[in-house]
Amino acid sequence: MGESTEQREPRVIIVGGGFGGVATAKELNGLSADVGLVDKRNYHLFQPLLYQVATAALNPADIAAPIRRVFRHQKNVHVVMGEVEAVDLENRRITVKGEQVSYDYLVLAAGAADFYFGNDHWAKIAPGLKSIDDATEIRRRFLLAFEAAELETDDAARQAALTFVVVGAGPTGCELAGAMIEIAHEVIPADFRHVDTTTARVILMEGGPRVLPAMPEKNSADALRQLEDLGVEVRLNTRVTDMNEDGVFCGDEFVPTHNILWAAGVKGAPVGQTLGVELDRSGRIVVGPDLSIPGHPNVFVIGDQAAAKSAKTGKPVPGVAQGAMQGGAFVGKIIRQEIEAQQRGGQPPERNAFSYFDKGSMATIGRNRAVADVFGLKMQGFIAWVLWAAIHILFLISFRNKVLVSIGWLWTYIFTARGARLITGGREPRVKRPPKIG
Amino acid sequence: MGESTEQREPRVIIVGGGFGGVATAKELNGLSADVGLVDKRNYHLFQPLLYQVATAALNPADIAAPIRRVFRHQKNVHVVMGEVEAVDLENRRITVKGEQVSYDYLVLAAGAADFYFGNDHWAKIAPGLKSIDDATEIRRRFLLAFEAAELETDDAARQAALTFVVVGAGPTGCELAGAMIEIAHEVIPADFRHVDTTTARVILMEGGPRVLPAMPEKNSADALRQLEDLGVEVRLNTRVTDMNEDGVFCGDEFVPTHNILWAAGVKGAPVGQTLGVELDRSGRIVVGPDLSIPGHPNVFVIGDQAAAKSAKTGKPVPGVAQGAMQGGAFVGKIIRQEIEAQQRGGQPPERNAFSYFDKGSMATIGRNRAVADVFGLKMQGFIAWVLWAAIHILFLISFRNKVLVSIGWLWTYIFTARGARLITGGREPRVKRPPKIG
Repeated sequence: MGESTEQREPRVIIVGGGFGGVATAKELNGLSADVGLVDKRNYHLFQPLLYQVATAALNPADIAAPIRRVFRHQKNVHVVMGEVEAVDLENRRITVKGEQVSYDYLVLAAGAADFYFGNDHWAKIAPGLKSIDDATEIRRRFLLAFEAAELETDDAARQAALTFVVVGAGPTGCELAGAMIEIAHEVIPADFRHVDTTTARVILMEGGPRVLPAMPEKNSADALRQLEDLGVEVRLNTRVTDMNEDGVFCGDEFVPTHNILWAAGVKGAPVGQTLGVELDRSGRIVVGPDLSIPGHPNVFVIGDQAAAKSAKTGKPVPGVAQGAMQGGAFVGKIIRQEIEAQQRGGQPPERNAFSYFDKGSMATIGRNRAVADVFGLKMQGFIAWVLWAAIHILFLISFRNKVLVSIGWLWTYIFTARGARLITGGREPRVKRPPKIG
Repeated sequence: MGESTEQREPRVIIVGGGFGGVATAKELNGLSADVGLVDKRNYHLFQPLLYQVATAALNPADIAAPIRRVFRHQKNVHVVMGEVEAVDLENRRITVKGEQVSYDYLVLAAGAADFYFGNDHWAKIAPGLKSIDDATEIRRRFLLAFEAAELETDDAARQAALTFVVVGAGPTGCELAGAMIEIAHEVIPADFRHVDTTTARVILMEGGPRVLPAMPEKNSADALRQLEDLGVEVRLNTRVTDMNEDGVFCGDEFVPTHNILWAAGVKGAPVGQTLGVELDRSGRIVVGPDLSIPGHPNVFVIGDQAAAKSAKTGKPVPGVAQGAMQGGAFVGKIIRQEIEAQQRGGQPPERNAFSYFDKGSMATIGRNRAVADVFGLKMQGFIAWVLWAAIHILFLISFRNKVLVSIGWLWTYIFTARGARLITGGREPRVKRPPKIG
C-alpha cells in the first residue's frame, strides 16, 4: 500500500466485475485516478447466456473473459481477485484479504445471490445459476441424471431420475426448461440403449400467475404456449414449500425428483447486509436518485445490488444487464466530473437523477423459438428467435473478438450437436440400484 | 440383468473408453454380440491436446466427446458410466457398481495413472495431466499463481509464486513448459499492474540425460534448444527426491516454488493390480504376442495398461495413442473372427501376433515450434510445427465435425488470445501476505 498521503491520486474502488462494475470502470478511462476493481472471480461473465453453458451448448470460455484482459489497455485500472470482507462507510475504507484500503469513491456492484426464502438448506439440493461453476455443476447433474436412469432398474426411481423441476419462471427458468426438454426429447434419445429419454419430464413451477412476470402479458401467454408445445409442464401459482433429496413439496403435493434447479429468488450480495444502511425486502441497498446511499454521497450502488427507482417513470430499475450497464455509465460519469473538477480547482456540476431506458427484453424457449418485447413491439416464435440470435451473435463476436468461433457456435446450436456435453468435477452419479449391462 | 442363459448373445466387455477401447468397439460394429463399454467418465478424450486445455488455449469440449455420442449409431454397444471394482478371471465376470456381469471376452483398456515413485503424498502437491478435471485444475493453479504474485509484497514469496516446476520431459512435460513460459512472457504481461510476469521461471526437470527420451537423439537436441530459446530452464539428470508446499528438493538442492506439475511417471491403471497376473515394473499387465493374458486367451489388454512387445521388432509397444488404437483394432478383429466362426459353427482362424507400426511422433514447443520424427524423417522448428498443426486440425475437424470451430481454434492459437483463461472450481488463491491495491 505505502499510503503516502501527500499528492495521492483520488482512489475509486469498484466492487464487482459484472456489467455494472465494468461499465463504471470503462467510463473512468483516461481519468487521473487510481481505479481498483475487486472481484472474487477472475472473469467477467455474460450472464444471459449462462443457461447455455448449463445445457451444454456453449463452453464457459465463450461467455466469460478474464477481467484483467478487459482492462489490459486501461492503465488506471488495478484488478484485484479477492472478496471484500468489510466496508467501513464512516472511515471510507474497505477490507480485502485482511488489508484495509481507503477510498474516495466506492461503487458497489456485487450483484445478487440466490435467495431460498430462508431455507438455506435447499441450496445444496437445488443449485442456482449465477457463476460458471454453478453452470458446470448444473450441467453435470443434468447429464448424470440420464446416466443414472440408464442403469436404474426400478421404475419409480428411474422416473424420479428423469424428472427435472425448475423453480421460478423468469427468463432463466424458462430458458433452462425449454433447453432441457429439447435435449431429452430430441438430442440424446439415440445415445441410450435402455432408457427412453423422451419419457423425461420437465416441470416449471412459478409462484405467480404467469411465466416471465417482468414482461408484457402477451409475451407471457406466448411463452407459456411455446413451453407447453415443447412438452414442459408449467405449474403457475405453485409455491415450493419444502424439498429433500427425493423430491419437492408444494403444500400437500409431493413430486418425486432427483433434479431440482433454482431460478426463483435473488437477494442483494451479502456485503450489502453489513453496511447498516436501509435495505429492501430482497436485501438490496436503497439508493437515492443519483444512485448514492443517502448520507454517503461518495458511495454508489448499481445493478442487482441496488434498489433504485428510475427518475422518469418512478418505477424500480429492473435487475437486468441493461440496468446495471446504464447505472455504471451514470455513476462513472458523476465520479469523473467531480474528480476532474477537483483537479482543476473548479466546481463539479450538480448531479442528475438516474433514469432507466428500457430497450426491451427477450427470452428464448428451446432452440428456435423466443418471445421479445423490443421498443414496445411484441414478437414471438421463429422471428423473435432470429432477432435473439442476431443480437447474441453480435455480442459474442464483440465479446470474444472471434467471428469464426461465434459462427461455429450458431451452427452447432442450430444443428443440435451440443458439443459441451461433458461431465466433469463432483462426485459419482447417484444410482440406488445395481446397473444392467446386457 | 436378467441373465437368461439360453441363446444369449456372446458378450464382450471393454474396460476404458480411450483410444484403445474405442478402436476395439468400432471394430466390432455390426457383429451379433453384446458389447459393453465401461468407463468411469462419460467422455472420450483426445489426450495429446490435453496440455492445451491446461494452458487455456482449448476448451474441454474441443478435445472430448461423450462416449455415448461416439457410438450412438452402433447399436450393439452399451455404454456404462462406472468404475470396475473387481475382475474375476476364473469365473469370467467383472463387478461394476456392485453388480457382477459375466463376459465371453474381456478387453482391458483402462490406461495409465500417475505414478509418484511410491510418494503418494506428492499427488496433492504436484497434479498430473490425465483427465479434463486434471487439466482445469492445472489451469486454475497456473492462472492463480499470477493473481497471487500480483498481490504479494514479499520478494521471495513472489518469486516462489512465479516459479513453475515441471517434472518429466516427455512430450507432455515439454509442451506444458513451452506453453507456460510463452503465456507468462508474451501473452499476459500487459494484464498486470504490479507484477512483471516476464520474471516468471519455468524449470523442466528430467531424470534422464535428454528431453523427449522416446524420440531420436536429434529431436531431443532440437527440442532442448527450442525450449532454452523460449527461456525454459531445462535440468537434465535431475531427480526430484522430495517436495512440499514450499518447493521441491533435488538431493541437497531446494527450489522454492508454489507450482509443481507432474509429467514424469505413469503406471498401469489400478484394476490391473487386482488380477493376480504378471505385471511389469510399472504395474502394466504382461501380455502374449496376441495381446491376451497368458492362460486367459479370452482376456486382452491393450494401450497404456499393457506391457506388450511388437512381434516384428521385439521392442516394447510404446504408450502412445497409435499403439492403443492399433492394439484395439487388432484384438477387435480377433474377437470378431472367433465369434463369427462360432456363430456359423466353423473354426476360427489362428491368431496372429501383434506388430506395432510406428508412424512417427511429434511434440510442440511453444506456439510455432515443434520437433517431428515421421517415417524416419526428422524435422524441427516452424516446418515441424506446420505439420503438427495440419495433423491436429484434421483431427479436430474429424473429431468434432466442426470445421468452423477448428479453424477458429487455429486462429486463436496463432494469434495468442487464449480465450479459456478462466479460474473455476477449487479454493481461494494462495496468498501469504496482504494485497496492495493502490
